[in-house]
Amino acid sequence: MSYTPLDEGSVASFLATIPTIAKRLGGSPDQWTVREVGDGNLNVVFLVTGQEGGVAAKQALPYVRLVGESWPLPLSRAYYERLALADQARWAPDRVPALLHHDDVMALTVMELLRSHRTLRGALAEGERYPLLAGHLAEFLADTLFFTSDIAMPVVEKKARIAAYLGNTAMCRISEDLIFDEPFFDAPMNHHTPGLEDVVAAFCVDVPLRLAAQGMKARFLAAPEALLHGDLHTGSVMVTEADTKIIDPEFAFYGPIGFDVGMLLANLWMACLAQPGQRPGRSMDGLLLDQAATLWNGFATRFAGHWRALERDADHGSLHALGRGDADLREAAIAERLAAIWQDALGFAGCEVIRRILGLAHVADFETIVDEAMRAVCERRALHLGWALLVERDAFPDAAAVAQAILRESAGA
Amino acid sequence: MSYTPLDEGSVASFLATIPTIAKRLGGSPDQWTVREVGDGNLNVVFLVTGQEGGVAAKQALPYVRLVGESWPLPLSRAYYERLALADQARWAPDRVPALLHHDDVMALTVMELLRSHRTLRGALAEGERYPLLAGHLAEFLADTLFFTSDIAMPVVEKKARIAAYLGNTAMCRISEDLIFDEPFFDAPMNHHTPGLEDVVAAFCVDVPLRLAAQGMKARFLAAPEALLHGDLHTGSVMVTEADTKIIDPEFAFYGPIGFDVGMLLANLWMACLAQPGQRPGRSMDGLLLDQAATLWNGFATRFAGHWRALERDADHGSLHALGRGDADLREAAIAERLAAIWQDALGFAGCEVIRRILGLAHVADFETIVDEAMRAVCERRALHLGWALLVERDAFPDAAAVAQAILRESAGA
Repeated sequence: MSYTPLDEGSVASFLATIPTIAKRLGGSPDQWTVREVGDGNLNVVFLVTGQEGGVAAKQALPYVRLVGESWPLPLSRAYYERLALADQARWAPDRVPALLHHDDVMALTVMELLRSHRTLRGALAEGERYPLLAGHLAEFLADTLFFTSDIAMPVVEKKARIAAYLGNTAMCRISEDLIFDEPFFDAPMNHHTPGLEDVVAAFCVDVPLRLAAQGMKARFLAAPEALLHGDLHTGSVMVTEADTKIIDPEFAFYGPIGFDVGMLLANLWMACLAQPGQRPGRSMDGLLLDQAATLWNGFATRFAGHWRALERDADHGSLHALGRGDADLREAAIAERLAAIWQDALGFAGCEVIRRILGLAHVADFETIVDEAMRAVCERRALHLGWALLVERDAFPDAAAVAQAILRESAGA
Repeated sequence: MSYTPLDEGSVASFLATIPTIAKRLGGSPDQWTVREVGDGNLNVVFLVTGQEGGVAAKQALPYVRLVGESWPLPLSRAYYERLALADQARWAPDRVPALLHHDDVMALTVMELLRSHRTLRGALAEGERYPLLAGHLAEFLADTLFFTSDIAMPVVEKKARIAAYLGNTAMCRISEDLIFDEPFFDAPMNHHTPGLEDVVAAFCVDVPLRLAAQGMKARFLAAPEALLHGDLHTGSVMVTEADTKIIDPEFAFYGPIGFDVGMLLANLWMACLAQPGQRPGRSMDGLLLDQAATLWNGFATRFAGHWRALERDADHGSLHALGRGDADLREAAIAERLAAIWQDALGFAGCEVIRRILGLAHVADFETIVDEAMRAVCERRALHLGWALLVERDAFPDAAAVAQAILRESAGA
């Protein structure tokens, strides 16, 4: 069978041909309910429920959904997505949906249905808060990034994993163009809220800013430290009160650890910066700012804990080999590495904030602010923060310093 | 045919079965002269001359020649060597020997015979100096490292090249162990000149030093910036008055640009530091120190020149794409990148110096100093320099600063 795009009318009969899926759903296909919910930029997603259970079926389209057929995109991304889902499940099984079936030809991935979950981005915009969230995200980051890195993984195995993802070039290219390049010049698909023209013009000729962004691109291109999710914004996080799941790792590749960390932090910080527009007159929600700090601190603590727990006798060529039995060296190495990840995270966060306001792919946090003038005010503050994260990185020794800056920006309205 | 080790008795008849090689040599095999000259640590090398011409035939052994059959090493390194020879010939054809034939099963590479050339290490130890050398080496470094990097090479092509070399793990592992790990603890195969025990003991507990060495290892493991030679010491350089050729790229892989640069500089600096032992009573040869500086400056100038000459319209996702048409940004990017390469080069040079004195694989520069006490004096100075290159890197803004430090060390005898 060759690739055929599924739709709400055809997906049930297709899934019925897969015994494990048919059994999971139960009953006959004409009793199943199908709902297409793909609100992302790239794919179609069907939620299918039967008498016994439900599944989520995600199919890649041969083009970028956000733009249309004029922007082709290879179906191979579905292959990399299920590869990443399997790798992530090895290290953080509780934080990713169970993979039930995949079909490389159909570019189709069938996963457990996250029945009670909603996307974090939408929930945050409505003021929902999740006390377990920061801990769960820290767990996902620390577990997937530490155990796929040179520190924990034998060198030969790690190189094989790097190789396994090196072909995901089309997805990486999207990030290279949209995050690091296009927001900083007058790229055709850029768009922004009226009133920000002066910032756009200033950024285009800001050599330190563009140099810093290109420096982050250089890291993105040539720092295969660990297996990244690659698109870890709040739209890739599904939440309930009790659970957190990370979805959509089709941008996965081996890259700098700070990229996943920084993108996630940036999206939490944007959720904060959008609040004055979403709920005028109400004060900034300190809990969300605290959660960003808790996320970073939780990640750092857990990452360090994994490092300390490595078997002392391991001698497979990993970075930690030399530190075995030498606590001083190990602690110095942990501190140095975490500082470097933080530096990277700040720079990547700066790029992420700027590109979500000036580039092609915006975020609902700001887009749902109906009052254009108010939206421009919020976005201007965010752009200033993004600029500082790239150009004045040393001013942010920790997540608390970023929180302070966000409060200062918002108070200055 | 399966792999069979060749020897002086069998190599001629084997080469006679390869028409292009037989024709190049001319006459009949019984008229050919064969000389085995493999003075390296890993392989056998036959120089074969006939009536018409000559060839060099290099065969990998399934173990490390320096240690013996107890240390197996895969024959695949011959495959990577000819891959690298071909890649290097694309960018620096005048600086590598012509590849005439290869046989992956026999792990055999047949190259042009460098009839009048000798190894740079031996020549330097005898006081020979080559006015064109620094320029030639700068050319090789700048041309191979720039054009295989993210700056010049389209991203998709570069990722394919990274993948092509990712399997050369056994050779990389030798470097990982022998350069970054073993010199800094009491590894079984370490050896050193009597009298250096205090330095060995101090280095083993020197946390900043070992942390810096592990930092360089992290760069070596996860910074695929460009195609490296991977073993660019003065024994991999063949010279005449007029020509310079770089041989033996079997350690080739995509790694940090500063590694090739730093290893080469370190070996030139060691040649200087060994002089008081090799030629007692004679003053330090300033020409050689100058050549190291000329090499770095020539590399930097040529690297920058290549960057400036890139086509402005190129839009293949490389790092330079954004800099097109913006001279300020481009110049800032060039300066920043060269500073980063210099920092890396210093750190790698520090590791190289230390491992050549305290690790397994030493260099003739020091080993040929018969007076053990004098050798220890020279090596102690070199170790101090190596330590400073790793731990006090900021003290060396340029190659002249390193030259000054070497002169200071030597004057302090």
